[in-house]
Formats: sequence, C-alpha cells, structure tokens
Amino acid sequence: MKKQVKRNVIVGQSGGPTAAINSSLAGVYRTAKDRGYKKVYGMLHGVQGLLEGRYTDLSEHIRTGLDAELLKRTPAAYLGSCRYKLPEIHEDKSVYEKIFKILDELEIDCFIYIGGNDSMDTIRKLSDYAIITGAPVRFVGCPKTIDNDLALTDHTPGYGSAAKYIGTSVKEIIRDGWSLETEKGQVMIVEIMGRNAGWLTGAAALAKGEDCDGPDAIYLPELPFDVPSFVDNVRSILKKKASVVIAVSEGVQTKDGKYVNELGGGHDYVDAFGHKQLTGTASYLCSVINKEIGCKTRAIELSTLQRAASHCASRVDILEAYEVGGAAMKAADEGDSGMMVVIKRLSDDPYQAGTEVKDVHKIANDERLVPREWITKDGTYVTNEFITYVRPLIQGDVAPIMVDGIPRHLYKPGFQELL
Amino acid sequence: MKKQVKRNVIVGQSGGPTAAINSSLAGVYRTAKDRGYKKVYGMLHGVQGLLEGRYTDLSEHIRTGLDAELLKRTPAAYLGSCRYKLPEIHEDKSVYEKIFKILDELEIDCFIYIGGNDSMDTIRKLSDYAIITGAPVRFVGCPKTIDNDLALTDHTPGYGSAAKYIGTSVKEIIRDGWSLETEKGQVMIVEIMGRNAGWLTGAAALAKGEDCDGPDAIYLPELPFDVPSFVDNVRSILKKKASVVIAVSEGVQTKDGKYVNELGGGHDYVDAFGHKQLTGTASYLCSVINKEIGCKTRAIELSTLQRAASHCASRVDILEAYEVGGAAMKAADEGDSGMMVVIKRLSDDPYQAGTEVKDVHKIANDERLVPREWITKDGTYVTNEFITYVRPLIQGDVAPIMVDGIPRHLYKPGFQELL
Repeated sequence: MKKQVKRNVIVGQSGGPTAAINSSLAGVYRTAKDRGYKKVYGMLHGVQGLLEGRYTDLSEHIRTGLDAELLKRTPAAYLGSCRYKLPEIHEDKSVYEKIFKILDELEIDCFIYIGGNDSMDTIRKLSDYAIITGAPVRFVGCPKTIDNDLALTDHTPGYGSAAKYIGTSVKEIIRDGWSLETEKGQVMIVEIMGRNAGWLTGAAALAKGEDCDGPDAIYLPELPFDVPSFVDNVRSILKKKASVVIAVSEGVQTKDGKYVNELGGGHDYVDAFGHKQLTGTASYLCSVINKEIGCKTRAIELSTLQRAASHCASRVDILEAYEVGGAAMKAADEGDSGMMVVIKRLSDDPYQAGTEVKDVHKIANDERLVPREWITKDGTYVTNEFITYVRPLIQGDVAPIMVDGIPRHLYKPGFQELL
Repeated sequence: MKKQVKRNVIVGQSGGPTAAINSSLAGVYRTAKDRGYKKVYGMLHGVQGLLEGRYTDLSEHIRTGLDAELLKRTPAAYLGSCRYKLPEIHEDKSVYEKIFKILDELEIDCFIYIGGNDSMDTIRKLSDYAIITGAPVRFVGCPKTIDNDLALTDHTPGYGSAAKYIGTSVKEIIRDGWSLETEKGQVMIVEIMGRNAGWLTGAAALAKGEDCDGPDAIYLPELPFDVPSFVDNVRSILKKKASVVIAVSEGVQTKDGKYVNELGGGHDYVDAFGHKQLTGTASYLCSVINKEIGCKTRAIELSTLQRAASHCASRVDILEAYEVGGAAMKAADEGDSGMMVVIKRLSDDPYQAGTEVKDVHKIANDERLVPREWITKDGTYVTNEFITYVRPLIQGDVAPIMVDGIPRHLYKPGFQELL
C-alpha cells in the first residue's frame, strides 16, 4: 500500500449494548490517534444515525486519560446503537450512495463498526459496495456481543463481563434460596438472555465452586425443551433439596419450534431484523411448576442488567475489548477491508490469546452455538469443557470509579440531547 | 448486675435476607467471644428451627479471621432464616415452654435475634415470657431489613447495600436505554421491593448525578397510585425524550387499596405473616403503556438480586451491620432484655452515627414510612432531603474476595446439608 496522507476515521456501534463495547471504542480512538489520523468521528446510533447525518467528533468526548478510563467503564453503546438492516446492494443503491456521499464529505479513510452478527452484515455490504464503486474507504468490523455467537472468533468482547455478572448473580440467588428454604420447597427460575445460543445461560454454571453447588439444572436453547420432562426433573430435585435454582435461556423452544414463553402468551415486540423480544419464559415455567407441583416459585429475569452491569465487569473482557478495537483500527490502517477482527485463544490456563483478521463474508449472519458435546447427555447442564472455556474470560475486575457511592460513567454536558 | 460466670449465647436470623445480615452475625460472634462467653450457638432457620432442636456451634464455622471476612461478604442469612410467627403468650404457652426448655438445656444467657419488624415481635414476646417466668435469659434484637421500615432507628443495616445496588443498577439501565433510543420511544419500568415503605424505590434516585439524569419518575407505595395519571405522565415524558425509565414499588396500590399487580393478575403466594409475594407490577404497567401509548416497553424486576447483591455492598452498611451486631451482644451482656439496638445519626456529611438501645415494645410491628415531605408534591419523585438521608449509607465498597473470577462466600463442608 503506497504511502499517503491519512485523513479521517469514523466509528459506530450497533446491536445490543454490552459492558465492554465502549472499551472497544476507546481502543479504536486511541489507535487512530496513535496512527496519525486527523479526526475520529463517531456515528450517533450507528449507520441509521449516519444516514441522517448524525455524528460527533470523538475528541470532544475523550479529552483526557480520565475520560478514556471512564469510557471503558461506561455500559451500553456510548455513541448510541441501532438495529438498522441495510438493503442488499441490488435492491436499493440509493442508501449506499447516501452513506458514501457522507463518508466522502467527511474525508473518511477507515470505517470501524463495533457489533455482532447483524453489524458484520453491514460491514460486508459496505465493503462490497466500496469494491464495486472503487470508493477509497476501508471497512473493518470489531466484534461485540454478550451472546458470544459470532463465527470464527474464540469468543466476543462483552461476553466475559456478562458471564461474570450471571455467575455472580446466580450464586447470590442460590445463597438467598438456601436461607429461605421451606419444608414444601421453593423453585427459583432464572431467565437468561440468548435467543439461539446458550453461552450466557451456560455461564450460570460459574456459580458452582468449592462454596456453592451451582444451579440445579441449566437449559440451553440449543436443545429442544420438553415441558413435562422439565417438571419431572424439578420434582426429582425437590426430593433431594428444599431450594431449587434453575437457569433457563429466554430462547428455549419446544421440539416443534415454539418459544416456551409463547406458550404462556409473551410479548410480541419484533425488531428490524425480525427478532422477537423474548421475556416471560421463567414466568411461564413458574406457573407450570406452581400448578403441577404446588410449591413456592419465583421467576427472576436478569433482563438488561446482565448486559449493562459495568460495575461487575471482567478485566480480561474489558482489556480484550480495548485490544480488539485497536486491532480493528490497525487492520483498516494497514489496508484491510471487509474484514473482522477475531480473538484466537492460545491456551486456557494460564490464559493466553491474540487477535487475527478474518474475512467478514465468512462471518456475517452465521451463528456459533454451544457444541452438543459441551452440554450433558440429558441436556440439563453444561460440561466441564464449557467451564474451562468460559472461566478465563471472567477473570479480574475493573474497579468502577466511584463518586458519591455510585459508579461514574463518561458524560459530557449536553450529551444526552446529542443522542 | 452481680458478677456471675458467663455461660452461652444463641443467635438467630429471621425474615428476608440482606447483603449485610451476616456481618451482624460476625459482630455478635466476635463480641460474645471478646466478652468471655463459652459457646455461641446459631439457630438454624431462626426460632422455627430452634423449636425443632436445630442449631450449630458457630465456632465450627468462624474459625479464622478469613472466615469472618468471608462471612461479612456472604449474602442472605448464613444460618438460614424463617418467617415464623410466635403465638401470643396467652394463646399457646406450650411453644414458649419448648423454646425455654431448649435454652435452659443449652445454658443460654443471651438470645440475639437479627431481623426486621416480625423478628422484633419475636423478641418482644420471648422477653415478656422471660419476665413472667423469671427465666434468666436476656433477649436483644439486632435490626436488619432492606426495607428500612423499622421504627425508632435512623435506618436499618441491609438498606444501604440494597440502595447502592438499586442506584447502580438503575443508572446502568438508564444508560442502556439511551443507547437504544428509537424514534417511537421506549419505556422501561423497574420494579423495586418494599411492600409498604418506599425507601428502596426512592433509592433509584441515587442514579441521578452529574453524569445521569436519574429515573424519569419514581412511584412510592406511600401514596395511592393512579393508573391513568401514570399513563399521562409517561406520555408527557415521552414527548421530551425517547428513552424513559421509571422506578415503581412492587407495593403500589390504587386509592381503593388494591395492589396494582393484582389488576393484571399477579402471584398469590402468602407467607406466614399474611404478606403477599408481590411481583408483576412493572409487567402489568408495561402492558397498560403498550396498549395506551403503543411504544416498546420492558419490565425489569430487581427481584431477589437487590437483597442478595453482596458483590455491590456498601462499606458503611457492612461495617454498621457488624457494629450493630456487636452492640446487641454488648447490651445483652450488660443485662438488657426486650430491647433492640438502633442507629442514631449525628450528622449527614461527613456522616457520623452511633448506636443506642430502645425498648422493643415501641418498635415491633410498627412500620416507618417515607415522610410525605420527602416525596415531591405531585408524588412522582423523592426530594433532595431523601437523597441527603440515603447518600451517606451507600458510601464505600467491600471488595469481594474473588476466587476464579467469582466472589467467594463462607461455606463449610456439609453446610448445605446442615441447613
């Protein structure tokens, strides 16, 4: 690649928030500045905002080292996120023309998009369009998703912190359950995110250790969910102990493909990618247990808490997110386009990992699920291989910067109005 | 009081778990040992377990300084809790005879009970019975409740940690909301514990600071809840901003005394004290917003997480819980009976507080609610006085002792079977 004057960079965030996505933003910014780019723009609400001409100069936000540290500790997409699906290029060129006109006006060399499967679909389409039209912009994806379901990468930034929060919270719920054991027994069902992939739900097993037996059963969405077998399992666990805690994915489906939460009549909000908002699975299963077994039940949805809990972030995760953001910027700077940074694990314990760059065409819209052999034969728990995989990703803490007893986040005056 | 040989102590935990109740247990144990008592027994599952002859020698559990530190960081009642209501003495003496026979056999001088309103009712009855029968046991209550609704004390241990968790989590939820703002708007309703008292729900206002506007409205159970006014308020907030977060107590009632969660058909589990398990308030209100306004909604119940989140405990709270446990033991040792330790605040900022001892007859079954003047005139927020009151109680952190990326709790082999 011939030497040329570096112009500007634009970075955006897309998809569901995580506790680590802003650490990647900090990594992109730092590397762009270190590599001599003039301006680093941030799209507001991703490509959707960009299409409306909404962006900001990141140097107005990250002015000091303290700002960068606060950004790493700020949950959810600092720049705002979106769930906007680009049309196929042959379907509607006008959207692309609009985006590339803005990129041209802003003198953009590198376009970094931090997100999951849907965001990598955006990178794929934009880089394809650049190739077709010869536009001088490089497009690189930076992985992010608590769901950990991106193909080709060992894991995704955001997953480790969510897993740490889930393991910690489930352990606290189990302990709460012990203390209130009653003769009749009680069943707490913890509903965990993950539409199709059970990586988050499986992380409930992290509660297990020398001081805790862990949840009594774990149901991942990878296997069909059978309500009568579930009730039988709960009944048999209740014979052995009075307080039962079960982790269940929001996305479990019966063998005929019906979401369990729909059996009880759940919400029906559907996003731009056609994904249903799934909640109510635990609540429905509690009502079944109530009816069939008659004991006390409690449905606990970890809800948005599991993706936003910066106060319980994993150090490995936050640092990797920062590293991956830097690697994405580096790749784009060195001429890559239509690529995504992936994490390659070198060893489990002591944990060692590095980054690589892969063709985004091999990633987009391809979900990576928990392998069948990492789920026990009877389908009610994860195996030790699963734990060995996830354990390194939750190591270490990122102490929040506390002000008045509450974690401080990055915020510039007028910021919320900007969004 | 004449000098005599000190015999044994028994301590129990009762009512809903908190993140600080075990710190009080550690304080009782330490002070009992320091003051020369021979054995410190722990009732398993409070008075209910004691009646079945279930107790343990605490020295088998707290063997080292590390054990004591782990105990302070272990959520929920280490010894197991209960919701057992003693009959009035004139109704059924046999229960009392049974308890005092066990206390006599165990050579108990001091009986410390850590709990809330219902537990102080137990202390009252037992100390009355001891007076009537001349039994040589002193009964002292040690306050504990996340609800913060005990009379005569400035606040209760357990509240500060729950408030810190609520403020932190609501702030993270607000930030999550910003990042996903959509044109149509979205409303997140956070349901917080507190049957009759709004201390916990009001703590959502702690999210407010230089970097966050805080929740958009807060509804406490002290005031009647009007569904149409609520919808109007949400509609008017949505005109100004796209992402709305509202904190609502699980216990809000309409002006004719109906729980809001019952309007939508909630759970009907009722405990031994006749308290309903209240959940589903946020979920019901979301369905109303959905129907009336038509925007995206999400109901988030903080559920048991808010009372069990040791990983986010307040240092002031954990240390005060320890101090109050010690003060209860000291009071019993010095001859007090039928008393409860209370916390007296000396100043807000810098915060200073100490302990006193009050007659439990003035406390039992008397709920302390949020004063009307600490709620705004329109009833949709707390005032600065409320914040000034709660802010000191959430200061400082208690770093969890992390093992393999997850907080370690106190656990002795075979402990769960013991419970």
